[in-house]
Amino acid sequence: MTAGQPLHADSAAQPQRPRHSISPPAALDPGAVPSFPPPEADGDESWVWSQIKAEARRDADAEPALASFLYATVLSHPSLDRSLAFHLANKLCSSTLLSTLLYDLFVATLAAHPSVRAAAAADLVAARSRDPACAGFAHCLLNYKGFLAVQAHRVAHVLWAQSRRALALALQSRVAEVFAVDIHPAAAIGKGILLDHATGVVIGETAVVGDNVSILHHVTLGGTGKAVGDRHPKIGDGVLIGAGATILGNVRIGAGAKVGAGSVVLIDVPPRSSAVGNPARLIGGKKGEDVVMPGESMDHTFFIQQWSDYTI
Amino acid sequence: MTAGQPLHADSAAQPQRPRHSISPPAALDPGAVPSFPPPEADGDESWVWSQIKAEARRDADAEPALASFLYATVLSHPSLDRSLAFHLANKLCSSTLLSTLLYDLFVATLAAHPSVRAAAAADLVAARSRDPACAGFAHCLLNYKGFLAVQAHRVAHVLWAQSRRALALALQSRVAEVFAVDIHPAAAIGKGILLDHATGVVIGETAVVGDNVSILHHVTLGGTGKAVGDRHPKIGDGVLIGAGATILGNVRIGAGAKVGAGSVVLIDVPPRSSAVGNPARLIGGKKGEDVVMPGESMDHTFFIQQWSDYTI
Amino acid sequence: MTAGQPLHADSAAQPQRPRHSISPPAALDPGAVPSFPPPEADGDESWVWSQIKAEARRDADAEPALASFLYATVLSHPSLDRSLAFHLANKLCSSTLLSTLLYDLFVATLAAHPSVRAAAAADLVAARSRDPACAGFAHCLLNYKGFLAVQAHRVAHVLWAQSRRALALALQSRVAEVFAVDIHPAAAIGKGILLDHATGVVIGETAVVGDNVSILHHVTLGGTGKAVGDRHPKIGDGVLIGAGATILGNVRIGAGAKVGAGSVVLIDVPPRSSAVGNPARLIGGKKGEDVVMPGESMDHTFFIQQWSDYTI
Amino acid sequence: MTAGQPLHADSAAQPQRPRHSISPPAALDPGAVPSFPPPEADGDESWVWSQIKAEARRDADAEPALASFLYATVLSHPSLDRSLAFHLANKLCSSTLLSTLLYDLFVATLAAHPSVRAAAAADLVAARSRDPACAGFAHCLLNYKGFLAVQAHRVAHVLWAQSRRALALALQSRVAEVFAVDIHPAAAIGKGILLDHATGVVIGETAVVGDNVSILHHVTLGGTGKAVGDRHPKIGDGVLIGAGATILGNVRIGAGAKVGAGSVVLIDVPPRSSAVGNPARLIGGKKGEDVVMPGESMDHTFFIQQWSDYTI
Amino acid sequence: MTAGQPLHADSAAQPQRPRHSISPPAALDPGAVPSFPPPEADGDESWVWSQIKAEARRDADAEPALASFLYATVLSHPSLDRSLAFHLANKLCSSTLLSTLLYDLFVATLAAHPSVRAAAAADLVAARSRDPACAGFAHCLLNYKGFLAVQAHRVAHVLWAQSRRALALALQSRVAEVFAVDIHPAAAIGKGILLDHATGVVIGETAVVGDNVSILHHVTLGGTGKAVGDRHPKIGDGVLIGAGATILGNVRIGAGAKVGAGSVVLIDVPPRSSAVGNPARLIGGKKGEDVVMPGESMDHTFFIQQWSDYTI
Amino acid sequence: MTAGQPLHADSAAQPQRPRHSISPPAALDPGAVPSFPPPEADGDESWVWSQIKAEARRDADAEPALASFLYATVLSHPSLDRSLAFHLANKLCSSTLLSTLLYDLFVATLAAHPSVRAAAAADLVAARSRDPACAGFAHCLLNYKGFLAVQAHRVAHVLWAQSRRALALALQSRVAEVFAVDIHPAAAIGKGILLDHATGVVIGETAVVGDNVSILHHVTLGGTGKAVGDRHPKIGDGVLIGAGATILGNVRIGAGAKVGAGSVVLIDVPPRSSAVGNPARLIGGKKGEDVVMPGESMDHTFFIQQWSDYTI
Repeated sequence: MTAGQPLHADSAAQPQRPRHSISPPAALDPGAVPSFPPPEADGDESWVWSQIKAEARRDADAEPALASFLYATVLSHPSLDRSLAFHLANKLCSSTLLSTLLYDLFVATLAAHPSVRAAAAADLVAARSRDPACAGFAHCLLNYKGFLAVQAHRVAHVLWAQSRRALALALQSRVAEVFAVDIHPAAAIGKGILLDHATGVVIGETAVVGDNVSILHHVTLGGTGKAVGDRHPKIGDGVLIGAGATILGNVRIGAGAKVGAGSVVLIDVPPRSSAVGNPARLIGGKKGEDVVMPGESMDHTFFIQQWSDYTI
Repeated sequence: MTAGQPLHADSAAQPQRPRHSISPPAALDPGAVPSFPPPEADGDESWVWSQIKAEARRDADAEPALASFLYATVLSHPSLDRSLAFHLANKLCSSTLLSTLLYDLFVATLAAHPSVRAAAAADLVAARSRDPACAGFAHCLLNYKGFLAVQAHRVAHVLWAQSRRALALALQSRVAEVFAVDIHPAAAIGKGILLDHATGVVIGETAVVGDNVSILHHVTLGGTGKAVGDRHPKIGDGVLIGAGATILGNVRIGAGAKVGAGSVVLIDVPPRSSAVGNPARLIGGKKGEDVVMPGESMDHTFFIQQWSDYTI
Repeated sequence: MTAGQPLHADSAAQPQRPRHSISPPAALDPGAVPSFPPPEADGDESWVWSQIKAEARRDADAEPALASFLYATVLSHPSLDRSLAFHLANKLCSSTLLSTLLYDLFVATLAAHPSVRAAAAADLVAARSRDPACAGFAHCLLNYKGFLAVQAHRVAHVLWAQSRRALALALQSRVAEVFAVDIHPAAAIGKGILLDHATGVVIGETAVVGDNVSILHHVTLGGTGKAVGDRHPKIGDGVLIGAGATILGNVRIGAGAKVGAGSVVLIDVPPRSSAVGNPARLIGGKKGEDVVMPGESMDHTFFIQQWSDYTI
Repeated sequence: MTAGQPLHADSAAQPQRPRHSISPPAALDPGAVPSFPPPEADGDESWVWSQIKAEARRDADAEPALASFLYATVLSHPSLDRSLAFHLANKLCSSTLLSTLLYDLFVATLAAHPSVRAAAAADLVAARSRDPACAGFAHCLLNYKGFLAVQAHRVAHVLWAQSRRALALALQSRVAEVFAVDIHPAAAIGKGILLDHATGVVIGETAVVGDNVSILHHVTLGGTGKAVGDRHPKIGDGVLIGAGATILGNVRIGAGAKVGAGSVVLIDVPPRSSAVGNPARLIGGKKGEDVVMPGESMDHTFFIQQWSDYTI
Repeated sequence: MTAGQPLHADSAAQPQRPRHSISPPAALDPGAVPSFPPPEADGDESWVWSQIKAEARRDADAEPALASFLYATVLSHPSLDRSLAFHLANKLCSSTLLSTLLYDLFVATLAAHPSVRAAAAADLVAARSRDPACAGFAHCLLNYKGFLAVQAHRVAHVLWAQSRRALALALQSRVAEVFAVDIHPAAAIGKGILLDHATGVVIGETAVVGDNVSILHHVTLGGTGKAVGDRHPKIGDGVLIGAGATILGNVRIGAGAKVGAGSVVLIDVPPRSSAVGNPARLIGGKKGEDVVMPGESMDHTFFIQQWSDYTI
Repeated sequence: MTAGQPLHADSAAQPQRPRHSISPPAALDPGAVPSFPPPEADGDESWVWSQIKAEARRDADAEPALASFLYATVLSHPSLDRSLAFHLANKLCSSTLLSTLLYDLFVATLAAHPSVRAAAAADLVAARSRDPACAGFAHCLLNYKGFLAVQAHRVAHVLWAQSRRALALALQSRVAEVFAVDIHPAAAIGKGILLDHATGVVIGETAVVGDNVSILHHVTLGGTGKAVGDRHPKIGDGVLIGAGATILGNVRIGAGAKVGAGSVVLIDVPPRSSAVGNPARLIGGKKGEDVVMPGESMDHTFFIQQWSDYTI
């Protein structure tokens, strides 16, 4: 991959997204620079929160057995960040890390970092838009361990940046135990992220993940093990990484690229191209044809035809 | 896959099973139509329960440190379904989903659905028969997270069918967190199922799994991501799916087929044939030779010879 | 693999290791006989413990929010084994297996088996030496679920050897649920082990793992499923097994060998050679060149060049 | 006390009670025979339950912070006895007596004993009618430890009668620890009981308490300590016992009698008379004047004038 | 008691207090008007907090087994109110009232009501000054259930005043269960309060307690039971109420009065006089002689000589 | 009370006690010197422990619902002190004081102090002998909060003597909250103690309690409040103190004396005499007549005849 090869897609090439129409879907910009933290999107936050409340109220009315849970986690809270702080604190606490301590930490961090709150809202929109099995925003907020793991990571990432490393690592450890998602607090993760199913995801210390990326379960963004320095993958905007894919070393997966399920990727993957197999081979890329980024379209089986062609 | 291709094996071809002789092993019919829910097998239930009680009593006598656990989970209960409800409730509860609520839910569902109870008994017999490391029925009931995840799924599946979707999804989420097994409540799972080790298993919304199927850990029955409709695999009776295999899309894995460990399967696999590799290739099938279905014989390394031939 | 093929490396080839000068990583003796339990190394234990206390004290001073956790888990204990027993008991306990019972069990077992304590110390040194993301011994002790899973396994292994099998299996089950690491209590594991990230590791009943082995997450040392006998892999000293690798059957992975990420290995791998791909192929080995065993050097991407050569 | 001295009041003197018109307080029939268990009153049960649900719904709407609690304890349950079983199980459970076990026990006992359910409803009506600080039926059900202690006692009493004494005593012990109310499971307690504040109440093995009795906190119905036989007080219908009163030995407190706060009573107290002081003296009784029994009127300070007269 | 009879002492009569010299003791004004909430005393708050931190640090250094507890409850918090909110939340939480919810409630209430914080500080000074067994401010904050009960009451009182009655009553109930102290949220309690030992204290709805009052365990400030209106005692400033005393009805206990242990008081007690016995008799008062109010001098046995004189 | 007045009874007057023939109640030697800690009585310990095991086994067989509890608390332990340490740790633990920490503390203290173990055994014999409602040794060990509070106190007393005061006070506080029994760790308590019902017992810092004393609930051994020095009661051997009695100041209650229920005692009580009333009066004592000390005969109503005589 040459130095000029972009991690982010050419935003000029992006037409309107015809996404699963949720009314009105927040118009995430897939071509945005993969900066982290992402810019403010407060409008999204309050709109998503109102949706979550409405869904939770509907479910509480329909299912009394779940109403207590829904009031505790959603309906008794004044905002998305309080709800999220409460839910995470009660999931990640242990006999030696009390929920009240974690709640304090999450409330304070979310209050001080609007970008972390905005990214949470963007992740909710991402799950709702991309995952056909996602029954609603509240479903994602309450039940998606990938979503919860990413939010806890963002708080750990803030702590890491503040040199509160022991606490950040303790948080990483709890997330790894409770959600089976292991993200080093130093890793930089964009917004609009979907970790679908999420079990077994591992993201290393110097990894960077852009915006609007979709990562299935068992995906590894691993190191080379060689040295202490920059040794993990850099994932561009709008990338889709299939289940069980293993990407190792300081390689670049260009914006809009796709990595097939079960692939082992040790090389750069150009933007809007695809990599499949073990070891992964590049199988073309029809740049300019797709109007939707694969990280958003979630076409997991894109490579069937191509691969068949290739392998036979 | 053609319309006539059967998901279930040709039952006429099935002789007596020479399974690991447990005396007397319940005679599961591997050629049964992969219907769900399965027919009643109350005899099995009570026989298995009496075995579990005997094993638990033996272990409680031999190991006082474990006696409290065994009395709480097994020996204080009048039936398999109460024991199972108790054990699941205490494993899946959280600070916001109390064990008493879950216990109520499990007791009521198991009481009202004999087929769910019978399937649990069949799963216990399956684990006992197929897994050489299975030390007994009680061992499976108490310690196999794959077994427990499947039983919780069956309850969630009933709730889903009753349109109690929010509760079904909350249950799925707890199972995914506690057991690292993520089965969508809409997925239809047969009886006589063995999820061995189970960590990381993902089964999608429109997947169907027949009877007497054995699935190792890290197996994905995933969607194509393309659309909302029928998009997940259909697994026939008696299929064996090796560790880490990824099967994507609405493909059919025929009755008695085998999928090799680490395979990535994007195509139909005919009955009694095998698929290995990434991407998976079909490597023949000696229909009529095997007297035992692979989902039951658990021959994980069937493909060594064949594959070696193929790949060299 | 012939009878004479060594599981352990040629110790004559090993230079002196300048231990505990952590940077550059301590080169643990890869040529040691893969015996288990390992010989006494009490000096290590006390030195590591003093390091852990110093790190915990530093972190407690710097981060009041974590001080309570650090005092509870480390600073209030007189020795590494008491700290470990406390930490494991509080992590593995459940509503039906109380922490006090587990604590008793761990304290008694560690007190009676110096080799288990020594192996724990060796594992800490291994993590500290090999994992660039390891922030210290205390970090590993408190936060590495792979480390904790292995220590709990060693206790279960002792129980198994004492024919306290029901208790050993109950412990295995808790480890599988809490850490998503499933090691059969009968499996023999050496010392100086690093289970990095660890989610999804499965090690079967008759597996043997030598000393100074590094195993990444999602690795399976699985059985053939055929029979009850010796059916799992034998891993030599100093082996490195990459993320997601699946090794099946009673095959031998020779000392100093490397198994690539995502590989499916069904054959013996000679010492100091490498196996990559699905199915795995041997891609040479430069015996005599390396002074450090791969299990310690952690070069995950060794096979890029070789593989590229091979596959193109 | 002569043999003919009635423990119950003269029922002929009782006018019709205008029940459930809570203000003015419902005048429960004090002349009922102090039988135990009391007769069925299912109509009351369902009426009270509908009131509780309405109150809980009102409070959940007004106070989101409490809604989760109210749904968990009241609004998710189909009946008073399920709500009560849930609430008691979660209050009385401990690390060695799991909530699911207790819930099972309470549900089964309440289902099999309508009189226990009816007595619970009568106690709720009693608290609502007599205690000016009682904010509603739900308030009493959820917050009155005296009410909860009495309900748990009734279950223990059933167990005792079934010769399940070890379990009955374990339940007594939990009630004594959690609510600081110590009632021996053999003690027979009527219906329409109000234990106001309740801390420190002790009721011994052979004590009998009639219907519609009000007992303040710190009251002891104690034994003589002399022997194993019948050695505790017998309290008639409609009796009021003030705070801190100590009644010792097999004495009879006649129907409609009053015992002053802080009194130490070692003698029989005739019906509708009063006892005050340490040691208690009888201070008259204006039989026939009161239309409401003191246990229901709750006039704690009745003895001021009389006592002043007496003591000066 | 005439209308003009003061509940507060004659402040002009107050010389310097020679209290247990703690350097420098906050100079509480015993003659202050028994208003509630009390005026700001922020200086006290920060001074007391610095003392608590110093004591906790000393104890954590001396007793590693307690260090985790001390860091969790005191040393990790930035202020007295956060420490108190944390400690109360973890003590009063239950399976249906989560600690995070209570913590939120306590933090918000204490932040919004400086007078509640100041009263807490004054109570700590009171305990430290008056109770010879009080080992320090931290001892009181962490271990005195009377102190903790009063602080929780103050929060409940604020909620009551805000018409959040269901929540206030739920809080009262938890305090009654956990600390065996039952204070109606409507009761008005001054500052500088010592509830010594505290078990069994009951304070009714319309009770008023002035400043610098000391109340021993088993004390009842009870109602008459007659009606809904103003029916509980009014306790003046600087009053001392001995163990087991029962004060019933809307009577006034004048400033600086003493009530003997075990007394039953049904009448007004003039300022600086004493009441003893059952029923209580007034035994004089040497107004002007005492330089310290009894609520602060804690002379429990004042009445021995006087009573002996009186009763013989 | 003169200086020479003995706190312990005249041992010469004591016949041989036919111990352990529980029915009739074992007559413990009331004339033993009230030393603390008491001498070794290991024989008792093992005999009592064998009884407890037999009772627990009987109950576990008869009541499966309780078997888990009985195995956890009794049947899985090798000795009385381990069982006691386990049971206390699980009762007294909190979210900030973990059960494993307390268990460690109790195990270590009981192991190092045989006299504390012997005193526990003597207390069990005392409860079994004196309390007609005591169903067995196991009943007392598991269910008597008075028994458990005293054992925890003895551990706190050891800590206090070792100048581990902060930990001793924390333990006192947990006992006061959980059992509503408040005993200052500095108080010296003999052996063969029965705290019957126990709610609300308060024993101050400089109190001394001899051997074979029986104390009912709500009893206060309180201070004068005047000063820091020796200010609490000294209770001789074999004393019986009735429910709700309040004894204040550094007074001496002679060996074999009785204090009536509800009494307020401010004066010395000679050996084998009785004190009743508020304030308490001495009502004679028939020294030499009783062969059994009142603390053991538990005659609570001794004073009825005498008092009647006296008061009329």
